[in-house]
Amino acid sequence: MTGWQEALERQARVRAKAGLTRTLRPRAAGDTVVDLAGNDYLGLAVHPEVVGAAVEALRAYGLGATGSRLVRGSTMPHADLESDLAQWLGFPRALVYSSGFLANLGAVRALAEPGTLLVSDRYNHASLIDGCRGSGAEVVVAPHADPSALATILAARPGRPAVFVTESVFSVDGDLAPLAALHEVTSAYGALMLVDDAHALGLLGDRGAGGVAAAGLAGAPDVVVTATLSKSLGGAGGVVAGPEPLIRHLVDTGRTFIYDTAPPPAVVAGVHAALRIARDADDRRAILRERAALTVRRLRAAGFEVSAPAAGVLSVLAPGPEAALAWAADCRDRDIAVGCFRPPSTPDGSSRLRLTLNAGISAADFDRALDVIVECAP
Amino acid sequence: MTGWQEALERQARVRAKAGLTRTLRPRAAGDTVVDLAGNDYLGLAVHPEVVGAAVEALRAYGLGATGSRLVRGSTMPHADLESDLAQWLGFPRALVYSSGFLANLGAVRALAEPGTLLVSDRYNHASLIDGCRGSGAEVVVAPHADPSALATILAARPGRPAVFVTESVFSVDGDLAPLAALHEVTSAYGALMLVDDAHALGLLGDRGAGGVAAAGLAGAPDVVVTATLSKSLGGAGGVVAGPEPLIRHLVDTGRTFIYDTAPPPAVVAGVHAALRIARDADDRRAILRERAALTVRRLRAAGFEVSAPAAGVLSVLAPGPEAALAWAADCRDRDIAVGCFRPPSTPDGSSRLRLTLNAGISAADFDRALDVIVECAP
Ligand SMILES: Cc1ncc(COP(=O)(O)O)c(C=O)c1O
Ligand SMILES: Cc1ncc(COP(=O)(O)O)c(C=O)c1O
Repeated sequence: MTGWQEALERQARVRAKAGLTRTLRPRAAGDTVVDLAGNDYLGLAVHPEVVGAAVEALRAYGLGATGSRLVRGSTMPHADLESDLAQWLGFPRALVYSSGFLANLGAVRALAEPGTLLVSDRYNHASLIDGCRGSGAEVVVAPHADPSALATILAARPGRPAVFVTESVFSVDGDLAPLAALHEVTSAYGALMLVDDAHALGLLGDRGAGGVAAAGLAGAPDVVVTATLSKSLGGAGGVVAGPEPLIRHLVDTGRTFIYDTAPPPAVVAGVHAALRIARDADDRRAILRERAALTVRRLRAAGFEVSAPAAGVLSVLAPGPEAALAWAADCRDRDIAVGCFRPPSTPDGSSRLRLTLNAGISAADFDRALDVIVECAP
Repeated sequence: MTGWQEALERQARVRAKAGLTRTLRPRAAGDTVVDLAGNDYLGLAVHPEVVGAAVEALRAYGLGATGSRLVRGSTMPHADLESDLAQWLGFPRALVYSSGFLANLGAVRALAEPGTLLVSDRYNHASLIDGCRGSGAEVVVAPHADPSALATILAARPGRPAVFVTESVFSVDGDLAPLAALHEVTSAYGALMLVDDAHALGLLGDRGAGGVAAAGLAGAPDVVVTATLSKSLGGAGGVVAGPEPLIRHLVDTGRTFIYDTAPPPAVVAGVHAALRIARDADDRRAILRERAALTVRRLRAAGFEVSAPAAGVLSVLAPGPEAALAWAADCRDRDIAVGCFRPPSTPDGSSRLRLTLNAGISAADFDRALDVIVECAP
C-alpha cells in the first residue's frame, strides 16, 4: 500500500494552496540575526553561567539521564532543581518533566477523574487541549479569559467535580488571564484551577515567580501550576508544581512521567543556573517591560493592530496567511527573525506576526528590528 | 476545595498497601554503582566524543533551542542529525522530536485518519498506547507478537484502512517481534506497519541500523519507524523515520512536533556523535550479545524464570511486587542497580526484575553484578 502516501501528498497540495506549508530553516551558530521569534525572554540560554553549569554536569554525568526518573534517570541536579522550583513558585512540591508538553498532558490527566468536567479556555495551548481530549473526561471550551462565562458553565453543573484549565500569559497574543477573578469563581464552585505559566515564569511576579504568584495564588490548595523550562529559563523541560499528594500521584501513576526518559542532567543543571539568575533579574525584567511598551507604541503608531502584552510576547495582525509569511520572510532577509503564526497555530484563525522580546539583545539591534518590521509591512 | 487532595491521599494508601509506591532516588555523579538498570546499552552516554560534541554545541549555541522547530528551534545540528538518522535507518527522511514519547504520539496520530483501524500489540509501550487512545480511531489490541492473530483481525475488516503498531524489541522482556512475518500480513491486507525500534536501534541489524533493518524492511513504503535517542545513543529525544510525504505531513500538521520546543542543540549534537560511534561499534554489540547469553545461562542455572532477550534487555520473574522491590533494594545496597517493574509498568501484571545490559562496564563488574543478583534473590 502506497496509496497512503498519495493521500498525504493530496493533503499537502491543499495546504500549499491555502498558504499553509511550513519550512524548517536550520540556523547556524553565531548567525547575526536579531531574534524576535524565540522564547529566550531573559537572554539566559546563552548566559555564561548557564552554559558553564551545563558543561560541568555533562562532564560529571555524561549526556543522557540513561533512564526514566524512577529507574536511573533521577540525578542530584534533578532533585535540586525540583526543590528550588517549588520554593520559587511557592508550592509544596515540583516535578520536572522532559518537556512542558508532557508536563501538561500529565497534569491534566492526573486531575481528570472519570466524572470530572474539564473547562478549557478557548485559546489554550495545543498541549493543554490534547491533555483534555486524551483524558477521557467531558471537556467544555470556555470563552477566552472570561470569569463570568466560567461561572455560568460551572453553575450549570452543580456538585460536579470540575477543573478549569488556562494559561496565565497567552502564548500568541501575550494577554494575561484575570487569574484572581477566575480563581474566585473556581473556588466558589469548589473547582480546581490548572494554570500553564509558560510565558509568565521568570517575567511576572515578585522575583519572577510567575503569573500565578503575581495574582496572589502561589501555594493555593486548589491551584496547580505547569510551565516549560524552555522560555525565560533558556533550556528545555517542563514542570508541574502543586500540593504534595498531587506530586506523589504523578510519581506513582503519571504515564508521561513514568514512561519517559528523564531530561539530561546537563540540561537540568543549566536550567537551575538560569533559575538562580532569573530570581535576581529585575534589571532584565525592566528592560523587557520597556521593550514591550515601546513595541506597542511604535507599531500602533504605524497603524498596525497590536495585542496588549502583559509580559514578553505580542502579536501583530496580518491580512492573511500568505501576507504574514511574506512579511516574516522580508524581515528575515534583513536579518530580523519574527514569528509567523498561521492556522492552525493561531487561536482564532487569523494570521499574525508574533514578536517575542528578548532582554539579551542590544538596544540598537532592537530599535533596528522595529524599523525593519514597519518597513517590511505588506 | 481540598477534598481532592484527600482523595489522592486515599488512592496513595491503596497503592501503598498493594506495594505499588514508587520512590525517586537521585544519584550522584560518579557513584560506584554497577548499572544494569539504565538504557545506555553501548555505554555512549559517557563517551568522551559524545560529551565533547555536546560541550562544543553548548558553547556555540547556548543551552536551549529557544523555540519550536518551525520558529527558532531548528539548528544545523538538528538538520545534520536528521539526515544521518534517515540514512542509517534506511528511510527517505527522519524527523527529530524532544522525546520518543512525543514522537510516538505524533506518528500514531499522523497515520490514524478518522476511519482507520489501529491494531496495537498487547505489550506495547505506554506512549504507543496513549497515541492510539488519543487518536480517536478505533483500536483493537492484538495478541503479543502473533502474525496469525493479526491476520484474523485484519481479515475481519476487509477494505478498511489499518495500521499495525508494534515494538521491535519489547521493552520489558526484550523479545523480538517477528517483524518480517508481521509485515507479510500487513502488506497482504494493505495495512501499514509502525515499529517502535527504541530497544533495537544501535543493537540489531547491519551497523546497528535497528530491528526494522535487521528484518529487511528498511525503506519499505508501508513501514514507519520511531525510536528514542535516549538508549543506545545515550542522549535524549525521539525520531520518526519514513517516506517524504509522511515527514512533510508531520512538519505541517503534527501537534507534538509544531507545539513543542526543539531539543537542545547540545543534546542533538551529542546524539549525533553517538550515532557515528554506534554505526561502527560492532565490538560493543558483540560484548552485549555475549553478556545477554551469559546472563540468561547464569540466571536460568540458578533456577529463575528468565525471558529470551534479542538485544540488551531481559526480565527475571519475581514472586510479587514486594518481593521484586526487596530484591532490587538488596542489590542496590550492594551497589548493583537493577530495574524493578511492577504493575502498571509490566505488560502482564506480574512483577519482575528488569536487567539492561551495558557494553561500557567492566567484565569484572558485570560478573559481580550477576553474582549479587543471584545472592539477593528472595
Ligand atoms: C503555553 C505553552 N504551554 C506549553 C508549551 C510546551 O512546552 P515545551 O515546549 O517545553 O513542550 C508551550 C511552548 O512550547 C507553551 O507556549
Ligand atoms: C519502547 C519505548 N518507546 C518509547 C519510549 C519513550 O522514549 P522517551 O523516553 O525518549 O520518551 C521508551 C522509553 O522510554 C520505550 O522503551
